[in-house]
Amino acid sequence: MKRREFLSKTGAAGSGLILAQVGQQSTFAQELSTEPPNPAPTKVPDSTKVPGANVSKLGERSPFESIERLPLFNVISGTPLHKLSGTITPSDLHFERHHAGIPSIDPNDHELLLHGMVDRPLKFTMNELKRFPSITRTCFIECSGNFYARATPETSVQMLCGLTSQNEWTGVALSTLLREAGVQNKATWLLAEGSDAAVMTRSIPMSKALDDALVVYAQNGEPLRPAQGYPIRLLLPGWEGNTNIKWLRRIEVSDSPFMTREETAKYTDALPNGTARQFSVVMDTRSVITSPTFPAQIQPGWNEISGIAWSGRGRIAKVEVSTDDGVSWRTAELKGQVLPKAHTRFGCMWNWNGKPTVIMSRAIDETGNAQPTLATLLKSRGTPSLEAYHFNPIQAWSVDADGQMRFRPEM
Amino acid sequence: MKRREFLSKTGAAGSGLILAQVGQQSTFAQELSTEPPNPAPTKVPDSTKVPGANVSKLGERSPFESIERLPLFNVISGTPLHKLSGTITPSDLHFERHHAGIPSIDPNDHELLLHGMVDRPLKFTMNELKRFPSITRTCFIECSGNFYARATPETSVQMLCGLTSQNEWTGVALSTLLREAGVQNKATWLLAEGSDAAVMTRSIPMSKALDDALVVYAQNGEPLRPAQGYPIRLLLPGWEGNTNIKWLRRIEVSDSPFMTREETAKYTDALPNGTARQFSVVMDTRSVITSPTFPAQIQPGWNEISGIAWSGRGRIAKVEVSTDDGVSWRTAELKGQVLPKAHTRFGCMWNWNGKPTVIMSRAIDETGNAQPTLATLLKSRGTPSLEAYHFNPIQAWSVDADGQMRFRPEM
Repeated sequence: MKRREFLSKTGAAGSGLILAQVGQQSTFAQELSTEPPNPAPTKVPDSTKVPGANVSKLGERSPFESIERLPLFNVISGTPLHKLSGTITPSDLHFERHHAGIPSIDPNDHELLLHGMVDRPLKFTMNELKRFPSITRTCFIECSGNFYARATPETSVQMLCGLTSQNEWTGVALSTLLREAGVQNKATWLLAEGSDAAVMTRSIPMSKALDDALVVYAQNGEPLRPAQGYPIRLLLPGWEGNTNIKWLRRIEVSDSPFMTREETAKYTDALPNGTARQFSVVMDTRSVITSPTFPAQIQPGWNEISGIAWSGRGRIAKVEVSTDDGVSWRTAELKGQVLPKAHTRFGCMWNWNGKPTVIMSRAIDETGNAQPTLATLLKSRGTPSLEAYHFNPIQAWSVDADGQMRFRPEM
Repeated sequence: MKRREFLSKTGAAGSGLILAQVGQQSTFAQELSTEPPNPAPTKVPDSTKVPGANVSKLGERSPFESIERLPLFNVISGTPLHKLSGTITPSDLHFERHHAGIPSIDPNDHELLLHGMVDRPLKFTMNELKRFPSITRTCFIECSGNFYARATPETSVQMLCGLTSQNEWTGVALSTLLREAGVQNKATWLLAEGSDAAVMTRSIPMSKALDDALVVYAQNGEPLRPAQGYPIRLLLPGWEGNTNIKWLRRIEVSDSPFMTREETAKYTDALPNGTARQFSVVMDTRSVITSPTFPAQIQPGWNEISGIAWSGRGRIAKVEVSTDDGVSWRTAELKGQVLPKAHTRFGCMWNWNGKPTVIMSRAIDETGNAQPTLATLLKSRGTPSLEAYHFNPIQAWSVDADGQMRFRPEM
């Protein structure tokens, strides 16, 4: 078969996907031809005709991609979830929530003090911490305030839910350091303190410290970035971001919580009787569709509904997706590794018929903790306020007849 | 107990680790005191006394860290393995090996042509590829030329073995695309072609294409970087890097290999009888210590020997470490997830007595494929040449009495 004959024999695409037919507009098909190519304007030169760029010390992103955090009020920046695939958040896109900015720390001057109800108060340099057995673990960190109360139909998932990120973290078990120091019998709590200008402090139960707490010095293989606590931060898998103290400099062991400002005046959940929970630290089960969402515009036919689900209590057991505004639900596929306390990618094929509808997702974890509707969530809290912590409602996205996706606030 | 009394009660460190005692030189201990602090020069201001930096669109690395690829000859740059932890390689540090540089490609103009022995030749735009079910997988890519024949004692592991990296990749199964096109019964091979100025081409058996081959558009959650094939590359888990065609633009299905330049004049393994293997594509089992290695200088007492091990055939089954120049071996701990065809982090605690010795690691995978000594490797190839592909010898590092680590070429 000659080339022109082959090119004319372009069949229909299978499975409902709309695919371009093979034709002469193909730049590389032209090169394969002995006939003169049709002149076609291109934005960049034919990449096979010009030498490419040299190797470099650091590989930059493509100038055709715009992928950035969304800074707000100088203290928050959200991860662009709608532009990410898989489960890893690139280190420079990990969300931020600082209480007094990002300190500049010389690691050669930085030490971790471990004292209080211990037999041997100790101080660790960064080099000393790296001599202990290392532990590598992939998990999410989510800000307990990861909810946007003023959402409109033109709000992106980055704005709605961008204060959650996932990295592969490496460090030393806090239990190892505590064993070195010798925790006294009556010790039940510890204080973790950061070296930012807020001198951020939180109380951590000894049970969590001895379970899976890490003092980490690396994210995604490389040293922590300053915005994530360089040179060391506390990692409490599954617990609200604020307890994962950045720029960690001091751990004090005690027999009671310290009732710090950040766990009393803030980061508490009000209850109907006027009191507050002590403390709300475990992040509840949540899922969010990341694609397609605003500002995407989709085409009729097959599309993949893709998103992430996570729980601070363990592994995600199931994610369900509705494409008919919650009338019916079907089980989505969980992609790749399903790790405890980790963002889990889910996907679900959807043959969109071109009519307006609403899509949404809901998750349940291995402990049975299920993602609620916003109405259920507000009822359980006994308050109509949307300015609260630990909000994990089901989120919905509408699609218009022209394929335009928009957030559908569910009130 | 008063604070001064507490500070004077500093005990000995446990487990042989050399730890600093708690004393008044601590900047933050001073702050806690009501006494006037001792003036101590610091390179950066006390981070608790000055406002930190604002949030930003992209989080930069600390100015106190220098972590870069090592470019060579404008066509190769190696990953700084000695500065990485865990298993993920940051996207801007993924190794490079280009044959005509990095092309500049506008994704809106880029298409993938799928033709040859198929029922329906198809062309896919980037948006169309993303409508198929996505697959996320973490695996390594290693250049088959990942061996440095001119190593000296002052050669780093980045130079010796830096042409291997690991990312979390996301894309669509090549088998899905082939099913759309309808592969004809007699088809057994395909050609993958890149759109760089080398128009890189390799032959891939249909069995591999239908097994676990992916056409990927994302690495570590974000769009591929230009140096890794933006907007799409072929991913063949466990196969030599050169077959993972970057800037993929064409796949042609056939009933025989295409015998391209890069699999005949290059990327072949010579055999004693003067012929060459057709083809050497699966990467063999390998391990490498990443820390401590040159230029590190260690202290007597406990240190963690840390490294990575991988195999193109499956999971790593065991890594062994010797700290007495290969006389005795003990099993290292495999950290975190042990994934097939993936870098696996291992670690082994070592109580160094301060005397000169040699440390090394060796790995075996779940199929029984074991990492050989260089002598064994050269003997099996029947050639003394070090300028060859698929070299995976055990690598050794010496430590002097002063703790200086150096590469120990094993000949």
